[in-house]
Amino acid sequence: MDEINVQNQRVIEKLKGAEPFLVDVVPAHTVIPELNDKVLLHAGPPIRYEEMTGPMQGSCMGAALFEGWADTEEEVTAMLEKGEITFIPCHHVNAVGPMGGITSKNMPVLVVENRENGNRAYCTMNEGIGKVLRFGAYSQEVVDRLKWMKNVLGPTLSQTIKEMDDGINLNVIVAKAITMGDEFHQRNIAASLLFLKEVAPGILALDGVDLSIKEEVVQFLADTDQFFLNVMMASGKATVDGARRVEEGTIVTTLTRNGKDFGIRVSGLGDQWFTAPVNLPRGLYFTGFTEEDGNPDIGDSAITETIGVGGVAMIAAPGVTRFVGAGGFEDALETSDEMMQIYVEHNPNYSIPTWDFKGAPLGIDIRKVVETGITPIINTGIAHKQAGVGQVGAGTVRAPLACFEKALVAYAESIGLDID
Amino acid sequence: MDEINVQNQRVIEKLKGAEPFLVDVVPAHTVIPELNDKVLLHAGPPIRYEEMTGPMQGSCMGAALFEGWADTEEEVTAMLEKGEITFIPCHHVNAVGPMGGITSKNMPVLVVENRENGNRAYCTMNEGIGKVLRFGAYSQEVVDRLKWMKNVLGPTLSQTIKEMDDGINLNVIVAKAITMGDEFHQRNIAASLLFLKEVAPGILALDGVDLSIKEEVVQFLADTDQFFLNVMMASGKATVDGARRVEEGTIVTTLTRNGKDFGIRVSGLGDQWFTAPVNLPRGLYFTGFTEEDGNPDIGDSAITETIGVGGVAMIAAPGVTRFVGAGGFEDALETSDEMMQIYVEHNPNYSIPTWDFKGAPLGIDIRKVVETGITPIINTGIAHKQAGVGQVGAGTVRAPLACFEKALVAYAESIGLDID
Repeated sequence: MDEINVQNQRVIEKLKGAEPFLVDVVPAHTVIPELNDKVLLHAGPPIRYEEMTGPMQGSCMGAALFEGWADTEEEVTAMLEKGEITFIPCHHVNAVGPMGGITSKNMPVLVVENRENGNRAYCTMNEGIGKVLRFGAYSQEVVDRLKWMKNVLGPTLSQTIKEMDDGINLNVIVAKAITMGDEFHQRNIAASLLFLKEVAPGILALDGVDLSIKEEVVQFLADTDQFFLNVMMASGKATVDGARRVEEGTIVTTLTRNGKDFGIRVSGLGDQWFTAPVNLPRGLYFTGFTEEDGNPDIGDSAITETIGVGGVAMIAAPGVTRFVGAGGFEDALETSDEMMQIYVEHNPNYSIPTWDFKGAPLGIDIRKVVETGITPIINTGIAHKQAGVGQVGAGTVRAPLACFEKALVAYAESIGLDID
Repeated sequence: MDEINVQNQRVIEKLKGAEPFLVDVVPAHTVIPELNDKVLLHAGPPIRYEEMTGPMQGSCMGAALFEGWADTEEEVTAMLEKGEITFIPCHHVNAVGPMGGITSKNMPVLVVENRENGNRAYCTMNEGIGKVLRFGAYSQEVVDRLKWMKNVLGPTLSQTIKEMDDGINLNVIVAKAITMGDEFHQRNIAASLLFLKEVAPGILALDGVDLSIKEEVVQFLADTDQFFLNVMMASGKATVDGARRVEEGTIVTTLTRNGKDFGIRVSGLGDQWFTAPVNLPRGLYFTGFTEEDGNPDIGDSAITETIGVGGVAMIAAPGVTRFVGAGGFEDALETSDEMMQIYVEHNPNYSIPTWDFKGAPLGIDIRKVVETGITPIINTGIAHKQAGVGQVGAGTVRAPLACFEKALVAYAESIGLDID
């Protein structure tokens, strides 16, 4: 097994050595050529339209209306049912997407470059809270906001970032914000403020942009506490895709969910998916909603736990433990301590004061998961299971053990090893 | 003693019930009529010019040059030595000032209204780091910045805050930031960002203000991680001055230092000062400096510990413990737990996730201090002992026990009680 540990160490060094910079915001089709027509990206491992749960289907509706592929819900439904829209997992085209993960050609995406390798990753921008596409809402309000993000927010941020010499060094923001109670999945308030502070002076200084536009953008960023989540997701994707170049070992390089299946990928097994049915998140529901309303686990946002933040770094965010129904400080500590049974080491870049300055967990080894039966804990929003409703709660969910078991069997076969 | 506890409870209810709002930024003399000529406010209990330590004397120099009372250092020194400048403690005129606390008539001050009582308190604004007046620097750079604050920063913030319906509710910012690793004395990064987020959209929206001015102000606020410290100080002063209206009991209503003496005041003893020589802060010095260079403890900023944040709330800010040389997470926990031996209760407004959501300490009882021999621990910047140099480190310092002993004797006498 020593050789596997050595291989894993090489993967982990790539995860640790990643240098993610936010370098631009551009229309998705300009960097993802597959988005050339009626094509939508979705979260999680591959899935067909008919298998999608409500919120992802709702997001498809919103994206089609946003793109103007049709004018009415009925037309879009017909189009989807006739199979006129093609689907690709975000993860297959260097992208990630929150919740439904639905991304269409004219949506602006954050561009994060991993300077250690030169690879780039993409993610749509956070729309704020309430009626939002990612949770399956598709009303006019949702479509109008997407148009504003395309016409105003995206171009303004693009211009601002390009005026900077070097883009925005995301590790610096993350290193600060992890000392300020963010775990980067459920809670990004500090990182979003640090991001605002980074870009606000530049937005004001832009030439040729109306003051009213600048006001709108600064107000939106000031109001959007989870803005950094999507930045972190693109950063995570750029990080793991750098590490995926080391094609060996048993380190998890993808954790994601499509509402039906949880999918993982492993360093030594390349692009192969290992899936198992997702669990239902447990947590707190907004007034008027119960577990009956909750959609099964969904979204590429578990990229955060893949790189060792989110639920597994709960100790960094004791303020969030009550919100997700996960108890108090001691419970947060227990959660992160437990996770160290399946993560290989601590990430020295992300030192957590509440954990006596130990770094966030880094590198899930599928062997440890299968040996201990402990699976990564994920902080997550909870979507209503019906299309069109939106977020109804927040909680935690476990990755299903079966994905890791399948992956380990495949890994053993791949190296001609009998693991038991 | 029951009656004293009941009286103390009334004081604590006032501390707890305070509703501090930032309502304006104005030239000091418009709200502090005592600043009518060659008058300077200083930190701590009363002190004469000759007794002041280097940094406070340096600040006097800077203030006189800023006001244009003289053109050269020599002229100012002569003026000071001839006694042509009158000194008043900030605390005597509803004000507080960081480090030297030197405040002159044309410096802009933050105006915080305690809406529970209608009383107001004032504090100058944070100048940022490096060569700054509060640490005793007085070069042209320092004076120029003070002029910019008077001509640009003050008026812009004033206009912005007045455009808001209600001012800025400071308890809301504090309640959020205490979950983000701020303890509000050494660390205000989260609160400063929350403040930026609160005012930035309004600054952009101001009518009749040049875009270049807006840029300068937003950039300054984005760069000034300790901006909120002075806001918190004015908030603390407004809070304790509300509580000082209950003229009974043994609760500390002022903790402050002038570089020579530590001074306290107590709820049942009104305006009377109880003083003892200050200690030298212990902590970490910037490269090139040692404890030899450090000035003894100075500044009104211990108003933060008076209202139960700062050093006594170290558990809220484990990220700061290493910076002030106070160890790791367990040490922070120990510090705050120890403080609960001298504070009466927890402040439900300021819930600390890292303390299992217990509130910050609230209400120092001088009887508990004298009984236990435990004195409040204060987080503090360290000034160079010579005028003109500036900050050389940061650390913690204990209030001297003797102030509390003297106060308790006076209190016993005041109620005709033999305390032993």
